[in-house]
Amino acid sequence: MSEVLNLAKELILRASVTPDDAGCQALLAQRLQRAGFACQSLRYGAVDNLWATHGSDGPVLVLLGHTDVVPPGPRAAWASDPFVPEVRDGVLYGRGAADMKGSVAAFVVALERFVAAHPRHPGTVALLLTSDEEGDAIDGVRRVAETLRERGQRIDWCITGEPSSKRKLGDLLRVGRRGTLSATLTVHGVQGHVAYPEKARNPIHLALPALAELAARRWDDGYESFPPTSLQLSNVHAGTGANNVIPGELQALFNLRYNPHWTAARLESECEAVLRAHGLDYSIAWHRGGEPFHTPEGPLRAAAREVLARFAGAAPEESTGGGTSDARFLAPLGAQCVEIGPVNASIHKVDEHVAVADLEALPDLYLALLERLLA
Amino acid sequence: MSEVLNLAKELILRASVTPDDAGCQALLAQRLQRAGFACQSLRYGAVDNLWATHGSDGPVLVLLGHTDVVPPGPRAAWASDPFVPEVRDGVLYGRGAADMKGSVAAFVVALERFVAAHPRHPGTVALLLTSDEEGDAIDGVRRVAETLRERGQRIDWCITGEPSSKRKLGDLLRVGRRGTLSATLTVHGVQGHVAYPEKARNPIHLALPALAELAARRWDDGYESFPPTSLQLSNVHAGTGANNVIPGELQALFNLRYNPHWTAARLESECEAVLRAHGLDYSIAWHRGGEPFHTPEGPLRAAAREVLARFAGAAPEESTGGGTSDARFLAPLGAQCVEIGPVNASIHKVDEHVAVADLEALPDLYLALLERLLA
Repeated sequence: MSEVLNLAKELILRASVTPDDAGCQALLAQRLQRAGFACQSLRYGAVDNLWATHGSDGPVLVLLGHTDVVPPGPRAAWASDPFVPEVRDGVLYGRGAADMKGSVAAFVVALERFVAAHPRHPGTVALLLTSDEEGDAIDGVRRVAETLRERGQRIDWCITGEPSSKRKLGDLLRVGRRGTLSATLTVHGVQGHVAYPEKARNPIHLALPALAELAARRWDDGYESFPPTSLQLSNVHAGTGANNVIPGELQALFNLRYNPHWTAARLESECEAVLRAHGLDYSIAWHRGGEPFHTPEGPLRAAAREVLARFAGAAPEESTGGGTSDARFLAPLGAQCVEIGPVNASIHKVDEHVAVADLEALPDLYLALLERLLA
Repeated sequence: MSEVLNLAKELILRASVTPDDAGCQALLAQRLQRAGFACQSLRYGAVDNLWATHGSDGPVLVLLGHTDVVPPGPRAAWASDPFVPEVRDGVLYGRGAADMKGSVAAFVVALERFVAAHPRHPGTVALLLTSDEEGDAIDGVRRVAETLRERGQRIDWCITGEPSSKRKLGDLLRVGRRGTLSATLTVHGVQGHVAYPEKARNPIHLALPALAELAARRWDDGYESFPPTSLQLSNVHAGTGANNVIPGELQALFNLRYNPHWTAARLESECEAVLRAHGLDYSIAWHRGGEPFHTPEGPLRAAAREVLARFAGAAPEESTGGGTSDARFLAPLGAQCVEIGPVNASIHKVDEHVAVADLEALPDLYLALLERLLA
């Protein structure tokens, strides 16, 4: 059995449902210490984080990942125990196989080989792991990034091992992510009978023009390779079902996916200006899900494109699509970030899996990147 | 015990929850036949209706009422059995005491006295009762009105005994009612992920401008003593709670209360023109709750004003407010309609009641009206 497959299986055996690390990081820290890395455990609340470095000064390249997994759901829905790794027909099954214990195992194997081959490499290679990427993401990389900022830690490049490939390992290179910002809006009115609207204040009528203005607004025309910023109302609820009662309030949820033209603070301010301009009596709770990041042309993106093309046989699609990842917390430190990992078709589903051939190619792929950037 | 109190108690004893007449109309028909009325039972579906007349030709005055009552709710919430009439401290308690077995008993006593005193009165007096005023009102007066129309039955005046008084018997004269029209609107879109709005069609965004236009529209500036027509959105629902999903459809309920400037058909057409102008893919179900009616100055309104002023000690408020009543079905036959009945404070509530003094004044009040109009 290959070294990376063996290590991925060891990790899957540890049932590390967010935020429980279940011993994964201790196992990896032990190996990296043996390889000469300086390892530091950063535990915040119930969350384990590992910061392991080799080398000194810049440039600094960070491999970023997580040891936690999403819950498996009912055991019966899986063909085999989600926490007992099993290879069937050249495919490794288990919760976290693709997202992202396979990548984490490949990171560690690649780092061991890299420092063995280049004991006096220029700059610093680092591994940053958290056990809270799939959860609230409060005490994970967000918190570690604060610590690193306080220490004045420089980070030049960050490679996240999130499962980014679409159909074939290496067919997609993530070079940015939009930001996400959510709002829970309550518009207050005064309840009454539909026959006597003059005695009520209908929150639906009051809210409609403001919501229509927010929904219709063109925020921008896109930003470099990013699509235009978009606001989507996902929920609107008012009324108890009775058709003769004017309700007392309306609740709306909306979400903004925004490109680097904006910050969360500016968007919040613009949205509330619309609500105020319509004279609404409202309450609003904002949730900042993550600022956008973008990695322009440069050494990291060029190296990644070249290595992926070699492994996939064709130049990768370079994308800023998709949801969010922990890279959003390191990008604000000045790091250029890309995301490169296995095929994501089975993540968060039952029978999560990764092809053994892809898993076994990953350490070579990451090693090639390390050598292109730091050797 | 007075004759009207005795008859009201007999009616309350018959637990005639909509649409069950429970023998009320048979009891009343028997008395009216004895008094010389021609009585006809018109049963449609589960609904009993009684049409009793005395006299011939015009003018035709109809007393309009219902024998059905709303359900009493839990027995324990009442101080005494809702279907066992009980007088306590000069007040008669029981389901229907005010709405409107008291008025119905007073109608019958007044009619008996009227034909006894004026056996050869000019024109026709009639009593129309239904057992489906509180329910769907499909097979009740709506249906009887169709039959009367087919027969070419002339109706000049209609006095409904609905509990219209506010604080004191006779303090309010209802001279019209707004129409009511309800819509259940579904706006169809295409579900999707908020991060990829280009792959979805957000029904909230599509619906907002159309709903805002409907809500903001000024339909008219009122009509004679009627307030302006009003559209109120009572319910808007879209979304499953998740803030990352664009829902597939939006549902909205709205209700129009409209004055005689409009008909239901014209309002439906105007609303749908707005929906179509916004290019919506929608379904809509209309429910016509009743067209408006209005009784202008004339012999009926003048007589009613004068009689009420005598009984209440002051001129009544003349109103077109409130919900709907069965008068909406007779008004389209060309009948002038007013509503005159006891104090409505306890209707549809537990411990429904009517003051015995008011109940005992009612036959005299209705008799005075009959004599002013037909003697």
